[in-house]
Amino acid sequence: MSSIDCGPSNRRLSRGPWSVVRGLFPIFARLMTFNLIAKDTKSSARAGVITTDHGEIKTPIFMPVGTAGSVKAVHQRELETDIQAQIILGNTYHLYLRPGIPLLQKAGGLHRFNGWTRPILTDSGGYQVYSLAENRKISEEGVAFKSHIDGSSHVFTPEGVIDIQRAIGADIIMAFDECTPYPCEYGYARNSMELTHRWLTRCIQRMNETSPAYGYEQVLFPIVQGSTYRDLRQRSAEFVAEQGQPGNAIGGLSVGEPSEDMYEMTSLVCGILPQDKPRYLMGVGTPENILECIALGIDMFDCVMPTRNARNGMLFTSEGIINIRNEKWKDDLSPLDARLGGYASTFYSKAYLRHLIISKEILGAQIATLQNLTFYLWLVNQARERILDGTFAAWKDQMVPIVSRRL
Amino acid sequence: MSSIDCGPSNRRLSRGPWSVVRGLFPIFARLMTFNLIAKDTKSSARAGVITTDHGEIKTPIFMPVGTAGSVKAVHQRELETDIQAQIILGNTYHLYLRPGIPLLQKAGGLHRFNGWTRPILTDSGGYQVYSLAENRKISEEGVAFKSHIDGSSHVFTPEGVIDIQRAIGADIIMAFDECTPYPCEYGYARNSMELTHRWLTRCIQRMNETSPAYGYEQVLFPIVQGSTYRDLRQRSAEFVAEQGQPGNAIGGLSVGEPSEDMYEMTSLVCGILPQDKPRYLMGVGTPENILECIALGIDMFDCVMPTRNARNGMLFTSEGIINIRNEKWKDDLSPLDARLGGYASTFYSKAYLRHLIISKEILGAQIATLQNLTFYLWLVNQARERILDGTFAAWKDQMVPIVSRRL
Repeated sequence: MSSIDCGPSNRRLSRGPWSVVRGLFPIFARLMTFNLIAKDTKSSARAGVITTDHGEIKTPIFMPVGTAGSVKAVHQRELETDIQAQIILGNTYHLYLRPGIPLLQKAGGLHRFNGWTRPILTDSGGYQVYSLAENRKISEEGVAFKSHIDGSSHVFTPEGVIDIQRAIGADIIMAFDECTPYPCEYGYARNSMELTHRWLTRCIQRMNETSPAYGYEQVLFPIVQGSTYRDLRQRSAEFVAEQGQPGNAIGGLSVGEPSEDMYEMTSLVCGILPQDKPRYLMGVGTPENILECIALGIDMFDCVMPTRNARNGMLFTSEGIINIRNEKWKDDLSPLDARLGGYASTFYSKAYLRHLIISKEILGAQIATLQNLTFYLWLVNQARERILDGTFAAWKDQMVPIVSRRL
Repeated sequence: MSSIDCGPSNRRLSRGPWSVVRGLFPIFARLMTFNLIAKDTKSSARAGVITTDHGEIKTPIFMPVGTAGSVKAVHQRELETDIQAQIILGNTYHLYLRPGIPLLQKAGGLHRFNGWTRPILTDSGGYQVYSLAENRKISEEGVAFKSHIDGSSHVFTPEGVIDIQRAIGADIIMAFDECTPYPCEYGYARNSMELTHRWLTRCIQRMNETSPAYGYEQVLFPIVQGSTYRDLRQRSAEFVAEQGQPGNAIGGLSVGEPSEDMYEMTSLVCGILPQDKPRYLMGVGTPENILECIALGIDMFDCVMPTRNARNGMLFTSEGIINIRNEKWKDDLSPLDARLGGYASTFYSKAYLRHLIISKEILGAQIATLQNLTFYLWLVNQARERILDGTFAAWKDQMVPIVSRRL
């Protein structure tokens, strides 16, 4: 068992070295706000502004995934100036295992550790515990698991995971949940949802008992579960809405179910979650998924697809999807995606990128990642502009076939 | 046998698709010049300026290696603005196999293919044929070999390799040579050197028979061989010097011999090669090697060490050499190398880079490579400044122990 256990059965967290930082900084935090500035009349799409102590986030927004404190193959300045990311994700599971919370605390949080100065959202580690860790054992208390890196034993509890995310320094902290697989038997989905709700109550209590780790505000987003069952999703959304937290998330989708199910559940839940709080659809998705779910009322997205697929040579562009490894791009000396603007999309050609990807050159992963993230941020920004000028629904119907076609 | 054979026995090169470009561009080329602007009084160090059609190169200079048309893990704009590289290398062997000469011709040369606008030097492929290719068979005519990528058969001849480098669009073309291993039996070294000399004659003839591929000047650098034998090195240097080419290179060193032997051979050869032409020591080396060889009269260097070792976590800094994987850097939140200036060296901390390298994050390779190349260019620029202000020899003696110590 690691010496860094978390949870009520081991309260070292609240008196150990990684709580020392608390109290050293003046608390200047103010409540995160969400200003809804436009609603589409022909869909449920919204445009808004989330204000955090690390700056504004204009919604709808896509959040690049920075698993272990780095958006893979991208420098921090590229995230800001080329991709124009407004918020990135960190993974509690990965950061807890490596570099570890004591070092992040010593640095003054993840922002100071990796140099990213805009907002950070951390997931709760729940999803990774189920998908990556070994020998996991779930109980009322939490989840015991072994590290996929070195096999060491650890326990995540709702309380521990709040403490860890406070210590990471996330602006937005996610509640600890169980993410059910697809398909999922009804009884399992119901019991799991109820466990997630009980864990949420514990997460909220822990948030209320503790203070921001580094002086800036940290808020909690609860997560709606319930698999693809309408009654469970409704109950979960109602429970989550009642908690009155500054934002809410939908989990357990984009795990293999048909898109229609994803849209049905998203639509149902968006009808219940409060209008005046941001809604975050976790782990979604393709450009098409994102446009459709913006139309259903989602404000925030994250997904590894643009970064992970980039490294395999799949490009998302304003003209459609390109497998750059295909022979057809071999002699194509045109820019990757001139319409986007930005360095990588206009400076490098398809033929050059194809050569790099096929030759397994690191620069290939760098360029493709810049292209895909620049495109994803361009797409949500375009959506926002259309919501603001009242043309979103028609534009969305026009864009979906374009961004989802294979070139 | 590939359809892209090169050499006198197969003259498709001079009439095939990849010679089409010749003649399409007006020849505005002028002779590459080398202006020697300062000489150190206490050593043989020199400062100069090489002027090419793609701009000036201030010597002494280090040339980052861009094997397959990419300096690994580095964007073109980072090479220019962060590293401040003035010239980069391409590898004939790699570029010929992938992406292949027809595509490079279609692009208008490597500069247009990868977007690097400053000078490019290409090696002749000789070294890679010996170190990477399979089933190589050397003869008077040239070298037959099988690709390490797909096993396909190819032949490199002096004439073919000149044609390929013209088609790549190198500003500086290297003669086709045999690079002897270390240790090397005297008879083998002598015969090999004589073969390299006969190949040089053929290279020069081929250069004279052909025109620049893309309108800008392309010049040939012959290569001195002779292993670690003083008499062979002397003969080879005299033969090379007599050819009257715009620059000269020393090959076959930094292949495992003691540093003292490298320095002895370099000193001997520099005493024979003309003063008024740049001297390029191929494949060298450590920061210490570079400073010592600048003192012996070398103007140009290349080496994979700063880029390759970066990817394994070895950092070259203005304070010494760091193995960033060592536990001692775990909590070190200080910048990589504040003295250098530049993005990566000042923005990222040692602890963050250590985390990335240990976690096998691509960004780790990117940051470490930027650091090492920024340092190498800083080092040769510092050397140049000291030559110009007359303090080089003392500065060099002070710097060698610093840049070679392990931190």
